[in-house]
Amino acid sequence: MSLPCGATIGILGDGQLGRMLASAAARLGFRTVSFGPGGEHSPAAQVTGRHFAAGYEDVAALKAFAETCDTVTVEFENVPVSAAEAVIAAGTPFHPGPNALSVAQDRAMEKRFLEEAGILCAPWRLVDSLADLEAAHAALGPDAILKTRREGYDGKGQVRLSAGSDLAAAWREIGERACVLEGFVDFALETSAIVARGTDGGVAVYPPSQNLHEGGILRRSMVPAPISVETEQRAQALAVRLAEQLDYIGVLALEFFVMQDGRLLANEFAPRVHNSGHWTPEACATGQFENHIRAVAGWPLGETALLYNAEMENLIGEAAGAPVADLLSRGSLTLYGKREIRPGRKMGHLVRIRPL
Amino acid sequence: MSLPCGATIGILGDGQLGRMLASAAARLGFRTVSFGPGGEHSPAAQVTGRHFAAGYEDVAALKAFAETCDTVTVEFENVPVSAAEAVIAAGTPFHPGPNALSVAQDRAMEKRFLEEAGILCAPWRLVDSLADLEAAHAALGPDAILKTRREGYDGKGQVRLSAGSDLAAAWREIGERACVLEGFVDFALETSAIVARGTDGGVAVYPPSQNLHEGGILRRSMVPAPISVETEQRAQALAVRLAEQLDYIGVLALEFFVMQDGRLLANEFAPRVHNSGHWTPEACATGQFENHIRAVAGWPLGETALLYNAEMENLIGEAAGAPVADLLSRGSLTLYGKREIRPGRKMGHLVRIRPL
Repeated sequence: MSLPCGATIGILGDGQLGRMLASAAARLGFRTVSFGPGGEHSPAAQVTGRHFAAGYEDVAALKAFAETCDTVTVEFENVPVSAAEAVIAAGTPFHPGPNALSVAQDRAMEKRFLEEAGILCAPWRLVDSLADLEAAHAALGPDAILKTRREGYDGKGQVRLSAGSDLAAAWREIGERACVLEGFVDFALETSAIVARGTDGGVAVYPPSQNLHEGGILRRSMVPAPISVETEQRAQALAVRLAEQLDYIGVLALEFFVMQDGRLLANEFAPRVHNSGHWTPEACATGQFENHIRAVAGWPLGETALLYNAEMENLIGEAAGAPVADLLSRGSLTLYGKREIRPGRKMGHLVRIRPL
Repeated sequence: MSLPCGATIGILGDGQLGRMLASAAARLGFRTVSFGPGGEHSPAAQVTGRHFAAGYEDVAALKAFAETCDTVTVEFENVPVSAAEAVIAAGTPFHPGPNALSVAQDRAMEKRFLEEAGILCAPWRLVDSLADLEAAHAALGPDAILKTRREGYDGKGQVRLSAGSDLAAAWREIGERACVLEGFVDFALETSAIVARGTDGGVAVYPPSQNLHEGGILRRSMVPAPISVETEQRAQALAVRLAEQLDYIGVLALEFFVMQDGRLLANEFAPRVHNSGHWTPEACATGQFENHIRAVAGWPLGETALLYNAEMENLIGEAAGAPVADLLSRGSLTLYGKREIRPGRKMGHLVRIRPL
């Protein structure tokens, strides 16, 4: 099913990804409606034709929202699956679909899904108790990361372990919640492959970027990544395979560790547009936001080939407080309209391009 | 004065230019408010954080609008000067300023202003009566265009004259209103130069485009225009001179006839972003919408050099009703969110780029 020009696209979530999705949708002539707890000053609410300020558990508000929309999509993966189900119950199509959300919301389900799809993950173990943690740490340690199965992002819900770590303290620190332990991987670099998949099963894949994280937060993404063409193509093929296995519609991002020998170990995937693809609108004919909108609208996907080398730099916390003239001199500037600068908060990003 | 990040920019007018200005402002992190008679479904209202649905004569609504904004700008030149004055009376800065509006709203004032600035116009005469029309036609005819002094756009408010035209009928047809008669100019091509001027007097000028009109409506703009570098630079210098003479802040467009011998005769100027610059976001580092927002915000202007050859094609009336796949295959697509396709109505545009 293909949406007509001027149809209304709903976005579950009210952050910067929703803001950029809404702007891309508006450019294609769509009407946009956002839904989220952040209120009228949230990044997405500022640019959509209508905003529902409500929590994701508010079934009545979700129903009213869904009824104003011709299709609904999502801007972050921790929207409860029940919210997606409420949209579907109201008779409104929901992309990428609740299955992708539920898989992505649980690190253990996610890793199992990836492995069943033939996508190698870094070594991991389920941890449901201190005894599990001790056994897992003995098997995968000493360097490892304990992560909650649910609701972690940007380095939250994580405890780093090394030789001599107090495992009991780590178990308390993480809140004695269902976790996974991930063995520390001595990777050469991190990369991600972003793929758009349309309602007809057609795909468009972006060139993988090299991603630099600090403190669990993405700082910079660069394309092309310093990896071989063969590794690049493998990363893209795995992202396509994941999208196909999930019967996914829209944009997803699959993050990898690239090992010294070129092996790719999947880290995680995001069932949405992704921070590591924020360079795509500047460096490709069709950016990830436009391709996501095209996909969920049932429209043909656009070109994803690199027109430029590009580097994306996140503006995190105080970095966004630099003088405007300084920011503008450093690249193409996108700011998210957040009122308050807070440490670790993503406030905007810069993209620098240079000829291929 | 320079606006802080996250300030609120108001836009008088609710059409597609306001929509694209608002999207550019949002990308830079600004909040946006639109004002116009078109209601919540108007192109700009769909993408701004707040919309005032009111007429330009509604002083109370204008005051309320102005009070929500840190600065106000305009998306079309026929906003009454009194509306700009109401904004200023409320204590809110207004750019480009009421003077540029009042000059641009009256073809006679406009031509006089251009000529006093040393910018040659096509031959013209004031016409306030049938006797004036007869004298003007004898002087400038037989081929000429009778235009109302006020409120004409996209070929409206115009009557074409040739040898043997019934002047009395033309005078009735135009509504016996204050007019100018413009002698028909046997031009080689039409071009326009778009300039942004900042609060510090700094300017950024785009390369002039070749513009093709049909029925008084712009159909296509191409850059670079097939004119000499010298003619290109002259057009740019004249646009800069006009902006300086008007003490203008923001983007303006100056349209020219290019004669066979390379002479430039000014046709008219628009105190706003311009349809003939719709290729700039795709073909330059900084598009006209972003540069207008930067200018009225007191921010530094961005690069206007060509990164690509470009061609912009307006989607007028039924042209926008083509299958979406067809439109998307023909270039980078922008649609304005107008509900109803009407003959002559600008529904969107396509931009095609190719390497320089």
